[in-house]
Amino acid sequence: MLRVGVCQLNLTVGDLDGNVERMLAALAEVSGRGGDVAVFPELAVCGYPPEDLLAKPRFAQDCQAALEKLAAAGDRCAAVVGLPSADADGTLYNAAAVCANGAVVGTARKAHLPNYGVFDEKRHFTAGAPEALFEIAGTAVGISICEDIWIDGGAVERLAAGGAELIVNLNASPYCVGKLDERLAVLRRRIDRIRRPVVYVNLVGGQDELVFDGRSLVLDAEGAVLAQAAAFAEEVLLVDVALEAAGPVPAAAPLARLWVNDPAAAGPQALPPPALPAPLHPLDEVYEALVAATRDYVTKNGFSDVCLGLSGGVDSSLVAVIAADALGPGRVHGVMMPSRFSSEHSLADAEALSESLGIEARRIGIEPAHRAFEEMLAPAFAGLPPGLAEENVQSRVRAVVLMALANKFDWLLLATGNKSEAAVGYSTLYGDSAGAFAPIADVWKTQVYALARRRNEAAGRPLIPQRVLEKAPSAELRPDQRDSDSLPPYETLDQIARALVEGDKTVAELIAAEADPDLVRRLGRLLDAAEYKRRQGPPRARVTSKAFGRDRRIPITNRYRGEARD
Amino acid sequence: MLRVGVCQLNLTVGDLDGNVERMLAALAEVSGRGGDVAVFPELAVCGYPPEDLLAKPRFAQDCQAALEKLAAAGDRCAAVVGLPSADADGTLYNAAAVCANGAVVGTARKAHLPNYGVFDEKRHFTAGAPEALFEIAGTAVGISICEDIWIDGGAVERLAAGGAELIVNLNASPYCVGKLDERLAVLRRRIDRIRRPVVYVNLVGGQDELVFDGRSLVLDAEGAVLAQAAAFAEEVLLVDVALEAAGPVPAAAPLARLWVNDPAAAGPQALPPPALPAPLHPLDEVYEALVAATRDYVTKNGFSDVCLGLSGGVDSSLVAVIAADALGPGRVHGVMMPSRFSSEHSLADAEALSESLGIEARRIGIEPAHRAFEEMLAPAFAGLPPGLAEENVQSRVRAVVLMALANKFDWLLLATGNKSEAAVGYSTLYGDSAGAFAPIADVWKTQVYALARRRNEAAGRPLIPQRVLEKAPSAELRPDQRDSDSLPPYETLDQIARALVEGDKTVAELIAAEADPDLVRRLGRLLDAAEYKRRQGPPRARVTSKAFGRDRRIPITNRYRGEARD
Repeated sequence: MLRVGVCQLNLTVGDLDGNVERMLAALAEVSGRGGDVAVFPELAVCGYPPEDLLAKPRFAQDCQAALEKLAAAGDRCAAVVGLPSADADGTLYNAAAVCANGAVVGTARKAHLPNYGVFDEKRHFTAGAPEALFEIAGTAVGISICEDIWIDGGAVERLAAGGAELIVNLNASPYCVGKLDERLAVLRRRIDRIRRPVVYVNLVGGQDELVFDGRSLVLDAEGAVLAQAAAFAEEVLLVDVALEAAGPVPAAAPLARLWVNDPAAAGPQALPPPALPAPLHPLDEVYEALVAATRDYVTKNGFSDVCLGLSGGVDSSLVAVIAADALGPGRVHGVMMPSRFSSEHSLADAEALSESLGIEARRIGIEPAHRAFEEMLAPAFAGLPPGLAEENVQSRVRAVVLMALANKFDWLLLATGNKSEAAVGYSTLYGDSAGAFAPIADVWKTQVYALARRRNEAAGRPLIPQRVLEKAPSAELRPDQRDSDSLPPYETLDQIARALVEGDKTVAELIAAEADPDLVRRLGRLLDAAEYKRRQGPPRARVTSKAFGRDRRIPITNRYRGEARD
Repeated sequence: MLRVGVCQLNLTVGDLDGNVERMLAALAEVSGRGGDVAVFPELAVCGYPPEDLLAKPRFAQDCQAALEKLAAAGDRCAAVVGLPSADADGTLYNAAAVCANGAVVGTARKAHLPNYGVFDEKRHFTAGAPEALFEIAGTAVGISICEDIWIDGGAVERLAAGGAELIVNLNASPYCVGKLDERLAVLRRRIDRIRRPVVYVNLVGGQDELVFDGRSLVLDAEGAVLAQAAAFAEEVLLVDVALEAAGPVPAAAPLARLWVNDPAAAGPQALPPPALPAPLHPLDEVYEALVAATRDYVTKNGFSDVCLGLSGGVDSSLVAVIAADALGPGRVHGVMMPSRFSSEHSLADAEALSESLGIEARRIGIEPAHRAFEEMLAPAFAGLPPGLAEENVQSRVRAVVLMALANKFDWLLLATGNKSEAAVGYSTLYGDSAGAFAPIADVWKTQVYALARRRNEAAGRPLIPQRVLEKAPSAELRPDQRDSDSLPPYETLDQIARALVEGDKTVAELIAAEADPDLVRRLGRLLDAAEYKRRQGPPRARVTSKAFGRDRRIPITNRYRGEARD
């Protein structure tokens, strides 16, 4: 039996000292409860992903110095700690250091480097290979990092074949819808082949566009879940892992073993297996991801308060609720900015929302600036019919107001746009798309409604006024405007745009699959034409398998329409 | 002797049909002039870099279809054409197809995939290896792609050892200062080892942040330059390459040979060696890169005209000159937007500039909107001293005006910020940083002055008024403001910021090298704190070895200050 401390921590990129401090506290807890080993997430010392901080030759050295501080403060209890590790010649590895008794015993290197989706690990790291096992409290532990456990015939299988009795896997695995099931399937597929228990430790918390859900796992040699840590929250979870059920003796060449520590002199009483958390409803999972991403973006960037424009529509209403859940209503500042085209219900709904949430809401009508710009632009626009340019002015006036308040009071401005708008460019650059962070920009409009309804249900009262969920969406930039004047119904839009974006389908393929050819062509063109807007958009909390941003890197200058038929 | 057509073309990402059309015209020209083979740039069919267009399974199929159209229209003259090429199982290669006599004869695959700096090729492609030589007009030609020729002991050396008499190298090699010398050094290092002539064909033109300088090269087996194509312009250059001077017979296993075409029945008269272009002055090289990048960004995105704010300062003056050189003065629209804080000379200098350039300049004073926002914000700001928030409002009012004009008249707004400002965040988000493209955002302020002076010299008259080059830089957002109120002299700022950004130095390293500790710490913090602004900035024309953007991917949420000492 090995007593493992699963240290699912919320670490911050670049905060080497702060991260080590947090890890030391967790290590002390694990040690104090009789743990043999505390396991931390991938690249725990520097946070994940450090991106081009790794390009600075001094960065890995600074991480090494931070690791040594951690190692020096440790006791018998081993610590498995992710960090970037440089060779004498500067070659960088994504590594896990094993520390015990005040020193670094050795390191393991990641063998399989993901370089797709949101990952760019081949940009910085060189692939390693399993070199040794670590003998922790008498158990031969194979240490692997993230992708290593996803690969058939890869590093984890080599560790098991080399004599590992238990596999430890350090992760920085970002959340997206359905990710937990995917992870469980991968772990079970690997366990099917290796018949060894697996300790899967994940990072938790937000980092720019990514949000890590935690939900670290311990599985036994049959693939049963022994323990699962919290979703979107830190947890230090102690688990006694039995080793008896391991499979047959390995056939391949045994790996060398490094001694780390001996079994504890007086073994403590066996721990009861930890209770497993109840599964999360898919909508709650997404919602918690948005809340965690927003909270961490705001607080890790040194802000306490946020502001946002409240239009009385469903997008800004949902963002207000997310912000209030993330930071507390006292730190959320709503701004209502009616224009000559705003309807009565817009103001009333925004006011009702701010009252039900208990957030501040102030009212700053935009008519003076709106009129001023009309005057200033009148000579240039003389004789031309009003159109998009005039509509955009109003949206940009609101951004100027919001940014002035943000600058003055040191608030962080939240953008309220959703993924459907972002997909087709139904937004004003430097207008409603302005903000430092976009909590729902990876949420399709139809799902915005679903999340709003679900949150109201959870509250047991209309936190978001019922009318907001029922009225026709409108940007209110001209009289009686409706989103449906310019766009198909959101059910249709979302279905097609999702296939184009998340499914990487071409227009020709969707037409071949019998979608409306004109509509698909139009949405495909809008999608491409809006790339320049998205490129200047704020970071978005990523909750799907393909968000605009790190996931989807499409050139702005791009004439590929995907319309060709065979 | 082999007659090679170096087809240095300006291709557009995603424009498969357009690119093929352009290539067919070049191929016909090469064929018509007795060429044995026409060589095109890397990924010529789809343009470079296609980025995540490659993630669409249909994209490579569409490229293949475009290639077949090209092949079918060809004659005896071979064409070596870069394109993405998918295996039956969907594995993607960065490939070069060889076509002749109406068909595709075979393909070569890139063996070494760059995944650093601006390159992400491991994200999409799998590495190939030399498999065969192509027998073109009796010559065994080894085909390689870009990075293949940079690697000691790599694919090009294998091709030579396998019997290649001539090496063809397809490139999409982006420009930065000093790049031509670097390329020549690499080619000569390779030729030292292989003793074979090399035909190095480069792409030309702008693609989002990248600009390709062309300057394709043909070197003989001793490393002497036989031919060099134009800088920043298309050229189809025919060169007779002698093969007699090749080195000793290869020692390694010979590669298979694919027959492509026979020597021309009646060999034409030998061509005189093409004249070599005169070397470019380093400042002219950078300037031409900025002009080419701006022209292509504007025109490839379907715009004819641009607008920009003219402040009377050196940055907007230089951008106006670049735009006029790129598009012609009739397509450049300057807007002067004086405020209550603008000095007389600002307007006068902006007017003098627009007259000397022959561009349109209109004047729209911002006082009405400035005053309107003051009124609108007065209740919120009551009792607080004026500061950055009020200054930023003015900058954002100007952006609203510029964007309104851009929207109304379908102009593309150019941002006028430089790299020094971008480094320390001395700009207003959604204000002066607004724009669809930033021509000088990779040019340090000290170099902005140097380029402006050089352009004036070339014009033989003060195209940019002399006073603009002499007066103290100011944002003019409060009375008597000077950049030097907030920033060190630009000579100092540029030196330190360049070391932090392009040199990847940490603050601690610069302090150890005896820079002013307080200043370095301050600039280091400003650099990090401005990451969120840069992330929402427009694409920048890249002219240094490390631009903000694709080159330098630093997290926004980042507490690494690099201040720790050993």
